[in-house]
Amino acid sequence: MPNTRPATRTTIMDVARVAGVSRQTVSNAINSPERVRPETLSKVLQVVEDLHYRPSSAARTLRHQRAGAVGTELNAVAAQPSDIALPFLTALTLSATRHACHMVPFASKEAFPLLSGYQDMVRRRLVDAFVLTDTHPGDPRPAWLEEAGIPYASFGRIYDDPTRGYWADVDGAAGTKMAVAHLAETGYRTVGFLGWPAGSAVGDDRRAGWAQGVEEHDVAAGPAGSAPQSLPEAVRAAEALLDELSPGDAVVCASDVLALGVQQAALGRGWRPGADIGITGFDGSPVAQLHGLTTLTQPLNEIAEHLLTVVHDQLAGSADAAQGTLLLPTLDANNSTVITPKKGTS
Amino acid sequence: MPNTRPATRTTIMDVARVAGVSRQTVSNAINSPERVRPETLSKVLQVVEDLHYRPSSAARTLRHQRAGAVGTELNAVAAQPSDIALPFLTALTLSATRHACHMVPFASKEAFPLLSGYQDMVRRRLVDAFVLTDTHPGDPRPAWLEEAGIPYASFGRIYDDPTRGYWADVDGAAGTKMAVAHLAETGYRTVGFLGWPAGSAVGDDRRAGWAQGVEEHDVAAGPAGSAPQSLPEAVRAAEALLDELSPGDAVVCASDVLALGVQQAALGRGWRPGADIGITGFDGSPVAQLHGLTTLTQPLNEIAEHLLTVVHDQLAGSADAAQGTLLLPTLDANNSTVITPKKGTS
Repeated sequence: MPNTRPATRTTIMDVARVAGVSRQTVSNAINSPERVRPETLSKVLQVVEDLHYRPSSAARTLRHQRAGAVGTELNAVAAQPSDIALPFLTALTLSATRHACHMVPFASKEAFPLLSGYQDMVRRRLVDAFVLTDTHPGDPRPAWLEEAGIPYASFGRIYDDPTRGYWADVDGAAGTKMAVAHLAETGYRTVGFLGWPAGSAVGDDRRAGWAQGVEEHDVAAGPAGSAPQSLPEAVRAAEALLDELSPGDAVVCASDVLALGVQQAALGRGWRPGADIGITGFDGSPVAQLHGLTTLTQPLNEIAEHLLTVVHDQLAGSADAAQGTLLLPTLDANNSTVITPKKGTS
Repeated sequence: MPNTRPATRTTIMDVARVAGVSRQTVSNAINSPERVRPETLSKVLQVVEDLHYRPSSAARTLRHQRAGAVGTELNAVAAQPSDIALPFLTALTLSATRHACHMVPFASKEAFPLLSGYQDMVRRRLVDAFVLTDTHPGDPRPAWLEEAGIPYASFGRIYDDPTRGYWADVDGAAGTKMAVAHLAETGYRTVGFLGWPAGSAVGDDRRAGWAQGVEEHDVAAGPAGSAPQSLPEAVRAAEALLDELSPGDAVVCASDVLALGVQQAALGRGWRPGADIGITGFDGSPVAQLHGLTTLTQPLNEIAEHLLTVVHDQLAGSADAAQGTLLLPTLDANNSTVITPKKGTS
């Protein structure tokens, strides 16, 4: 295919000469701006602009035998997209610039996650490494990547062997414990729990944090219920929980959709969220924001930065031994845990 | 940085010899699989696998002076992410594979959209072209890209001059007209409208379609109201509308969040969505799915495929004259427009 843009003759040495810096400094200004002092950086970038210099990433890549890119798979088969997939990809994209690389998303209509998608990206040499999401028991990706010698880091633990691989995950139990502490401080008396049916690692973890929290804080343990991640079923399960609770009590939930179910069940019996019943969700999703729910937000920027640092270290051969890292969510208080709601908000 | 993978000596000619095909066929099998007959494709890919052949995209890129990639900007500054940004990126990612290229997302914490982000991607030679989203009056991107000779295609019309550039957009007026037709067929009598405050091009378009629809179909025109894209304000505006409507009537809304506001206002006065009041949203967002709202879904796969085809044709120098294309949304009926709700659903 023809190149429709005019060829440019400016080289990196031209830029270095005009800016009065070394060739390496120009390279750093373009590829690792964080390594260059701000005044030098702006001077170099001005010259880059003035001379219409365009470094060739292709030439750079060939020299280093690297694609300069990290692959990450998008879910093209889910009926409903994950609430955090886009914010996480955005966090990775911002972080990649700091690591002088870029993200390349890929997807398949067949299944998610799909090992052959990773093999295809490697075959096409589009990426040097991967960030995995949606790890699960029996996940074939870690073993294949390790055998092929391809660096990866995972958002979510490696379930088959959490001592293996580089991963970062959110400390779900610490999160629901924080929710109980917040509810105790705000003045709710009894704190129940609405989770997913037992057996999911993430869900069981979040339930354990609630159980620990009600032991450690000055609140009574309320009833615990469960429902799948569906609003009508969450409302039904919440009805049963609320039958055993009274105004002034609260419910910690394993997800924002479950918390929305509690909110709707409460409204259905005339209980005002916050004033009459405390409700906390989990994930910091748009659902929580839209409906004014207190939630636990995952530290996606921190996770993205950690994973790309670990990938970068592996590519550079300077990585520490593989290990997992648990990061704390942050509690974002909203109307559903405010005892006296302000006028004009809902 | 060291390359941690073992070097591979297999060349494209080795693959061609073993598979008994030409070098070009191997190249097509890898880069443009749709051009290769299925049985040939699977034979070639098996040999690629057996010989551990990995084509170098970097070498290919240098030869063609192309990055083989299309850039698209993510919004890293929105308080709440767009509901369709992730499904659209996923559609682009799937479509890119068919066009033998890949997508490279980029983002800035400063603003969205941000022209200098595009200039930066061009300077780093990471992409050959762009897909724009969130076009708006005064948008500086089309003029800069045209001046720089960089191909682009836009999801959303070029507002300053819709006769310029290659774009695809959803026909909003046709969508709300489809909603009125659906409500008339289902048996609602009077159809009102809840939109955004006048002055937004997208909102005014959707309102015009409703107005046309109630003239053309066998329903009475109900009242029209407006609210910004916020749930509490949508509920308040919906209260005023419902005061002028009766059970058996319906409301067409310019967005799913506005439709959720009508649903909540209806529930607040004991009207069952669907059975007592018909409600349609717009965008096919997760909000609509979560709350069982009938909605108009944007044809994102079709739009992504159209935009990448147009980008590809520009790169190949075979593009027709620039023009915009309007595509129809599809109506996804749900509980909010079912006169007799089924047992067991909500």
